[in-house]
Amino acid sequence: MTDPARLTATEAARAIAAGTLTPATLMEACLARAAAREPVVRAFVHLDPEQARRAAAAARPGPLHGLPFGVKDVLDTAQSPTGYGSPIWAGHRPRGDSAAVAAARAAGGVIMGKTVTTEFATRHPGPTTNPHNAAHTPGGSSSGSAAAVADCMVPLAFGTQTAGSIVRPAAYCGVVGFKPTYGTIHRGGMKVCSESLDTIGIMARSVADIALGMTGLTGRDHGDPEAKRAAPPRLLLSLGHAPEAAAPETVALLERAAAAARAAGAEVVESPLPEALRLAAELHPFMMNMETRQGLAWEYAEARHQMSAVLLDRMDWASGFPPAKLGEARRAAVAARAAFAEWTAGFDAVLTPSAPGEAPEGLAYTGDATFNLLWTLLYGPNVTVPVGTGPKGLPLGVQLAGRIAEDPAVLATARWVQAAMA
Amino acid sequence: MTDPARLTATEAARAIAAGTLTPATLMEACLARAAAREPVVRAFVHLDPEQARRAAAAARPGPLHGLPFGVKDVLDTAQSPTGYGSPIWAGHRPRGDSAAVAAARAAGGVIMGKTVTTEFATRHPGPTTNPHNAAHTPGGSSSGSAAAVADCMVPLAFGTQTAGSIVRPAAYCGVVGFKPTYGTIHRGGMKVCSESLDTIGIMARSVADIALGMTGLTGRDHGDPEAKRAAPPRLLLSLGHAPEAAAPETVALLERAAAAARAAGAEVVESPLPEALRLAAELHPFMMNMETRQGLAWEYAEARHQMSAVLLDRMDWASGFPPAKLGEARRAAVAARAAFAEWTAGFDAVLTPSAPGEAPEGLAYTGDATFNLLWTLLYGPNVTVPVGTGPKGLPLGVQLAGRIAEDPAVLATARWVQAAMA
Repeated sequence: MTDPARLTATEAARAIAAGTLTPATLMEACLARAAAREPVVRAFVHLDPEQARRAAAAARPGPLHGLPFGVKDVLDTAQSPTGYGSPIWAGHRPRGDSAAVAAARAAGGVIMGKTVTTEFATRHPGPTTNPHNAAHTPGGSSSGSAAAVADCMVPLAFGTQTAGSIVRPAAYCGVVGFKPTYGTIHRGGMKVCSESLDTIGIMARSVADIALGMTGLTGRDHGDPEAKRAAPPRLLLSLGHAPEAAAPETVALLERAAAAARAAGAEVVESPLPEALRLAAELHPFMMNMETRQGLAWEYAEARHQMSAVLLDRMDWASGFPPAKLGEARRAAVAARAAFAEWTAGFDAVLTPSAPGEAPEGLAYTGDATFNLLWTLLYGPNVTVPVGTGPKGLPLGVQLAGRIAEDPAVLATARWVQAAMA
Repeated sequence: MTDPARLTATEAARAIAAGTLTPATLMEACLARAAAREPVVRAFVHLDPEQARRAAAAARPGPLHGLPFGVKDVLDTAQSPTGYGSPIWAGHRPRGDSAAVAAARAAGGVIMGKTVTTEFATRHPGPTTNPHNAAHTPGGSSSGSAAAVADCMVPLAFGTQTAGSIVRPAAYCGVVGFKPTYGTIHRGGMKVCSESLDTIGIMARSVADIALGMTGLTGRDHGDPEAKRAAPPRLLLSLGHAPEAAAPETVALLERAAAAARAAGAEVVESPLPEALRLAAELHPFMMNMETRQGLAWEYAEARHQMSAVLLDRMDWASGFPPAKLGEARRAAVAARAAFAEWTAGFDAVLTPSAPGEAPEGLAYTGDATFNLLWTLLYGPNVTVPVGTGPKGLPLGVQLAGRIAEDPAVLATARWVQAAMA
């Protein structure tokens, strides 16, 4: 019999609905997997097996009945400490659950534990390793969620993305990472740093699992990504605003993706990036860091000695620009969103890299978000699907980026591309 | 000698800079005023005089040096309980200050106490009365901030607005209320309910005080609203999407405002509301309430018996619509923002009512946000200035609504209109 921890969320949900699997059995399997692997992977910052068992026993009926969730530790949970990846908040116990966690629980989901985040979901890493090779980063900032899902400790996990914090670690760890349309999952009870960019999303081991999870969390039917399409998709192919950042294996991967999609009947059109998008991408760091400087005003005033050097550098960098620069970045983003809708009219999604290449060696650096930040800023859905491995045998992904609110269609397109490349 | 509590923020800041007033003396005056008036006005939900004195003694140098702030109790403060106007959060002690409070303190501001908010900044009122007539509402949801500023307990106060929660209570209490461009003041550590709408702003007793406060909080120069303009403004005159909601005194007030502005040299053009704005206004309640339902998911799941009937009604109403309705509202809002920019091109601001009329009698109902919700949704700056009284002798205000990021210009225009009507 299959280890229940290895079931996808869709398979587990089906088994629970059929009565052949219980939430308790599934949780035991996930806990066993975590017990075996956590000494190496270190995906969780808080995992109390007894509490997880109680949560599984108390799972409500619903579309996500009995499915364990890893929760990135920038989302408040009433039942466990929430430290935002910073010693400033060590041992903090929120009174309530974040809206995202409450939505998961209301749909029947079970909170298994809190997963490692980089410091305030920025750059300073936690202890998590890449499950495929512990000498490599899992990516960040949603490090623990990506690693826990990849390593079958949990079928679903919450991440958050400001530049590339869901898509990149998901690609590095070989799972599906989904950043929905901006504003889809409410950020109440999240440690929000960049108000204009921070977006909550989820990770899983299949696109169908993402659709199941998003349907359960939002009440919006995210469709069946395995359903046969009426016609093959029309794709724009783009390496974004900094194509030179792509490693050779990524350039080759995108060529292979385009060829496979064309062979399966898709139209794939290479198209230069509109100037408005290039400009917005260049201004993304100002928006992200100037807003984060505002959001961490209390920490900066009262506890800056407990901030990492890399975060302090960012804060000081951001302080060097007048508020007008943030206004300029916001205007550019609004213009870019309109330009993106025009650019992609008639297409299903943009096919683009998920990351520069494989997960870099070492744990100090969580990798480069160059191939993510533009699509995050455009507010539409972004999804990475695993499609093979690179020269070191580590996972590679390709990303599909779509228009605002077209989340189900982009998920279906991503699954179609993944199947075409299989 | 003038009671320091009666000084405007601008006057107090000047006196403190000149050394003729100390933060401690100003705080004593504000505390004395509060001690005298709080038994009737009930503006504060938490006010500890010793703590306020310590805060004044510790005031940092800066543009707001020594100026006392009232803080609406939906904003976290580390030094005092933060209850969000709900028994569910009674006695809650945040670990950190909200970003807004941290910004005020970094600029030299002094937190005097927490002001009464309606339940989660929605409809269920607190105990605050209108300082001009205790039998009347001060408006809401920023009830305590408006009343405390109007009654000279504090020169500056934070409010928040989702529909009309700054502009309306400010108008009812006869003070200046300012909702800046959406996203100007970071919402970290705020109990955000409607992510697409909630906006932090401030109240004061003069437009110059608002400019001073906003300059100090944001680092962006908000200008001198008293400075002589190069030319009189060009104004659009509009009663918004529901002109029938205006009481006769409000219709007359807007006619008087238009006549006074014209007499002082302004061009005032009455213009029908573009259809895109009317549509967005009609969808505002869906955006506000459906997002609030998401934001209060934990409270609804765990403690709905501690929610007021009016809030539960709203939650249940919001649950009756599919997520697509929220998407429709968001799309309409984006379209309306573009239409507003076109409609107002060549004009300085829209001249429009602040509220239907005077503050209604009774404390159970905080009044109607019909004349505010559209301008909030459009994301640009909104300001109400007091310009006389109505048939019952209670304050009336007129509102100026402007384009995104044009906050200093809209403040200057509002002051110009107020002066023209004096």
